[in-house]
Amino acid sequence: MIHILLLLSLFTFTTHAAVQDFCVADVKFPESPAGYACKPATVVTVDDFVSTGLRGSGNLSNIIKAAVTPAFAAQLPGVNGLGISIARLDLAPGGVVPMHTHPGGSELLLVTQGFIKAGFISSANTVYVKTLQKGDLMVFPQGLLHFQVNAGGVTAVAFASFSSATPGLQILDFALFANDLPSSLVEATTFLDDATVKKLKAVLGGTG
Amino acid sequence: MIHILLLLSLFTFTTHAAVQDFCVADVKFPESPAGYACKPATVVTVDDFVSTGLRGSGNLSNIIKAAVTPAFAAQLPGVNGLGISIARLDLAPGGVVPMHTHPGGSELLLVTQGFIKAGFISSANTVYVKTLQKGDLMVFPQGLLHFQVNAGGVTAVAFASFSSATPGLQILDFALFANDLPSSLVEATTFLDDATVKKLKAVLGGTG
Amino acid sequence: MIHILLLLSLFTFTTHAAVQDFCVADVKFPESPAGYACKPATVVTVDDFVSTGLRGSGNLSNIIKAAVTPAFAAQLPGVNGLGISIARLDLAPGGVVPMHTHPGGSELLLVTQGFIKAGFISSANTVYVKTLQKGDLMVFPQGLLHFQVNAGGVTAVAFASFSSATPGLQILDFALFANDLPSSLVEATTFLDDATVKKLKAVLGGTG
Amino acid sequence: MIHILLLLSLFTFTTHAAVQDFCVADVKFPESPAGYACKPATVVTVDDFVSTGLRGSGNLSNIIKAAVTPAFAAQLPGVNGLGISIARLDLAPGGVVPMHTHPGGSELLLVTQGFIKAGFISSANTVYVKTLQKGDLMVFPQGLLHFQVNAGGVTAVAFASFSSATPGLQILDFALFANDLPSSLVEATTFLDDATVKKLKAVLGGTG
Amino acid sequence: MIHILLLLSLFTFTTHAAVQDFCVADVKFPESPAGYACKPATVVTVDDFVSTGLRGSGNLSNIIKAAVTPAFAAQLPGVNGLGISIARLDLAPGGVVPMHTHPGGSELLLVTQGFIKAGFISSANTVYVKTLQKGDLMVFPQGLLHFQVNAGGVTAVAFASFSSATPGLQILDFALFANDLPSSLVEATTFLDDATVKKLKAVLGGTG
Amino acid sequence: MIHILLLLSLFTFTTHAAVQDFCVADVKFPESPAGYACKPATVVTVDDFVSTGLRGSGNLSNIIKAAVTPAFAAQLPGVNGLGISIARLDLAPGGVVPMHTHPGGSELLLVTQGFIKAGFISSANTVYVKTLQKGDLMVFPQGLLHFQVNAGGVTAVAFASFSSATPGLQILDFALFANDLPSSLVEATTFLDDATVKKLKAVLGGTG
Repeated sequence: MIHILLLLSLFTFTTHAAVQDFCVADVKFPESPAGYACKPATVVTVDDFVSTGLRGSGNLSNIIKAAVTPAFAAQLPGVNGLGISIARLDLAPGGVVPMHTHPGGSELLLVTQGFIKAGFISSANTVYVKTLQKGDLMVFPQGLLHFQVNAGGVTAVAFASFSSATPGLQILDFALFANDLPSSLVEATTFLDDATVKKLKAVLGGTG
Repeated sequence: MIHILLLLSLFTFTTHAAVQDFCVADVKFPESPAGYACKPATVVTVDDFVSTGLRGSGNLSNIIKAAVTPAFAAQLPGVNGLGISIARLDLAPGGVVPMHTHPGGSELLLVTQGFIKAGFISSANTVYVKTLQKGDLMVFPQGLLHFQVNAGGVTAVAFASFSSATPGLQILDFALFANDLPSSLVEATTFLDDATVKKLKAVLGGTG
Repeated sequence: MIHILLLLSLFTFTTHAAVQDFCVADVKFPESPAGYACKPATVVTVDDFVSTGLRGSGNLSNIIKAAVTPAFAAQLPGVNGLGISIARLDLAPGGVVPMHTHPGGSELLLVTQGFIKAGFISSANTVYVKTLQKGDLMVFPQGLLHFQVNAGGVTAVAFASFSSATPGLQILDFALFANDLPSSLVEATTFLDDATVKKLKAVLGGTG
Repeated sequence: MIHILLLLSLFTFTTHAAVQDFCVADVKFPESPAGYACKPATVVTVDDFVSTGLRGSGNLSNIIKAAVTPAFAAQLPGVNGLGISIARLDLAPGGVVPMHTHPGGSELLLVTQGFIKAGFISSANTVYVKTLQKGDLMVFPQGLLHFQVNAGGVTAVAFASFSSATPGLQILDFALFANDLPSSLVEATTFLDDATVKKLKAVLGGTG
Repeated sequence: MIHILLLLSLFTFTTHAAVQDFCVADVKFPESPAGYACKPATVVTVDDFVSTGLRGSGNLSNIIKAAVTPAFAAQLPGVNGLGISIARLDLAPGGVVPMHTHPGGSELLLVTQGFIKAGFISSANTVYVKTLQKGDLMVFPQGLLHFQVNAGGVTAVAFASFSSATPGLQILDFALFANDLPSSLVEATTFLDDATVKKLKAVLGGTG
Repeated sequence: MIHILLLLSLFTFTTHAAVQDFCVADVKFPESPAGYACKPATVVTVDDFVSTGLRGSGNLSNIIKAAVTPAFAAQLPGVNGLGISIARLDLAPGGVVPMHTHPGGSELLLVTQGFIKAGFISSANTVYVKTLQKGDLMVFPQGLLHFQVNAGGVTAVAFASFSSATPGLQILDFALFANDLPSSLVEATTFLDDATVKKLKAVLGGTG
């Protein structure tokens, strides 16, 4: 027969040794290169590991008819340090997620509704494009330019998992046209003409 | 005006420098600790990055009323080396994914249909349990025991992303009762009695 | 002839560049996903790198006749961030280290006294068991269920090295029976019957 | 007095234990996610660790008046697996390294001749631009869009170190306009108009 | 009641998903930067994870009265890719493990017999020395010069664990005096005089 | 036509998701094993990514006629967490960078002026030596002893890139002779005679 004395030696051990199973993000302290600081285990609850924020669609009443709702470490603190996160993508008919990269992680896209045409371009300049339907997956290796467009007459929904808790997102048009990077530098480094650059800067709120 | 001579110096460069954007699994060669060998880029196609194998439910006509369909590196070669993969989970009413661990990665579960009660136990022996509905997420840190059970009257569907292309799967009951680990060792190391061990070994096909 | 002026330029350099040889754990600050915060180098002493706490046996007067004494980062702060740690294992005759996993690292067991039968089960459900004597080694890959039992008539001693400064420890029976995980969930996810679950919960102090 | 017998026990050990100091690339075998296969140590020579290929300028007689000469693992096999590599950058007056990313590593630019205006854009869409002179350094974090332009009346030279032996290079204009990505997809995902896309495709050799 | 049909869906899955629990070294194939190639799981046995080669002392009949017996990936193939290994150290009275480094990993020393004085020097040039007895531990951070000497009148035994399956070993005197590095270069880079260098080269078998 | 409403949904997202593109070092907080704490993104400027401190030569008026000027994370905070850094090396005629190691990273040396003879010794005790001229590169794998000496009649300049933001530097002569490591221990662990050790300790300021 087994006896509760077992706890006296071993349980004490497990309690103290249990650091670093996880590191729930505590955004009140400075970050480190490995991620956010860890919330003390004593105040961690199951809700740190759960997100209900992706139940519904983001707002599609915008010009790209698309919404991206992230559950990265800032939104879902339990993923901090675990090398994984996710985002919900809603695409109305005609909707587009413009050309972009994730500097910090690879992406695995899962379509859960509708049809999406997705693609990426490799360093060797090869194009990989495919039209996906419900249940289909597509991988976008880290740091490569890629895009998704609605490929059917209905709203599409997808979930993009990432190999990082903070994969980042750099949207090409924003990087080029929605900040104060001088038009002359944009033109010199993209071969776009001045009229095109100025027009897109005006639309996207860029200056310079 | 821009000229095609541009390609002469730079394009050659990008072509040869483009290794290691990705490493599509080539299962004909021996693996390394970092994953499968890479298929030559010249024979890689978009289908190496796409999976259509998770469109439908796995077979639920089994005693646990559950099916797990993986898209790991062996099934979706494009994820090899990228630190990400996914699996589809179908749970009929009453269905259960028994207590298990993924030795090689953390899991991020997304419910896309129905209701699932999920939970994990930490090294500090704290239990984290939550009932999830469509659109909800839950994180299971690497290596910790966890489970999912259908929590509604309808079939539930979920997708589990992993922070590894080969997260592995160790189902507790299989490890204890579905192999040739001698009953005496199972009993000594789990405190289960002989009758219980022998009954489960009989059911699950274990010997010894 | 060599001259002390050498120090003027180079020594200043080495002093300031010497960060991150090591990161001795300072438990007063929040942890990061990479481990504990670093104690300032100026207050680090050789004792931060030395442990005398594993000289003697842990208390074996418990029902499993076993004791595990860790020297993880919490006990031996010098290993913080270095990807290594160790624990002492004492096993009286009849002693058992019950089925368990280390979610955060692989283990390399060294027997220094007596005889130990040890084993692990792989994800592919293969069992690897061996009886070890003084001087023998056995590897347990990260996250897999494993166990050790005394295999002789004398007390056995072993030292388990880990590939992490905080490997964690999840003891199966504790995870199932020594917390508030409801019996109904334990039963549903392990196929154990209600009587068995309730008996072990009573013995190990579990509720629910 | 010391004796050559010392070698008998210890030297044998060092010889056999010396794997993985380095892993000189052997391009005849399949790659792994961690890099090229290793050449046997017995055929490695000092020339595997040395490059003389960056002594001179690349060919600047092209439309961007720029040349990039890499010493990545494919050109300098000794860096394979070591997480470092380098490339030489020559920029004639008026020369430009167009907007690009390195999906696989961060860059540290060192100017050794002339003047270079360099910049990058962060995920938060902040622009960081600086004009550098001989001896100056600038960091470009992994995966972010960046550029370099000659900022003086003389040819500039710089060396870009990378935190990877195979950092990759994705030039924005090539990715958009120098392959078979259909114009309609380029337009939909960049908001560029059809005339602009077709003009640049014509110049850069793109189809579709 | 539970039924063997359970195996039909789930067991097939676990078998195929079980890659990369471990990667037992197969030295017949080329190495990768991440370690040796993996032996097929079908031919792996428990003996790949077990070593009996450290039961006894190495040969102490040499001038340093010391022996180091490694169980690195080349000797204990099961540690390949797992980031851990071990070596046995025997030190007769007066025995010395000369000043050395492990380029590839940190070390955790466990004394199991006798007394050992051990020490290391940090990048900041601080010396950390301690005399250890049976059961004591000392950490040596990666890449730093360190040493062990017998500190009692009896043979000492210790086991050094490493945070790498192939930590390497560079013995200072061998690097300086037991190869063909020209004496003039040794003298210029160590400030040792010609007589000292030539004497040690003669003793240790160096040339040049 | 594109509309500024685009910003309403997507721009908010990118702003909040943009953590961890970089982690500019904030030395006021405790370090972690992964590097310095991160400065808040709001106070980061381009100057955190730029260094002008390597424009000129370090002071060569010392006995080794050499100067090393680092741009590690402590000097160039933008490299923190990015796995890269650099140092400038000036070598007057006759100048020497004495035998040393970098415990934390591999080195890639670029000669930009003059001639340098450089070399390293592997764990297998093989010597790799080469004389380099302007534009030449040489790799020194992590943790291995290496050196550089001026090989021409003119001052040489080189830049050493590292695969770590804090590679460390351990100069052999300083570790042996410029601290309080007792002479008896130096002698026992290096086989140098007492007179040699005491002479070098006197020159380099060592005690004991």
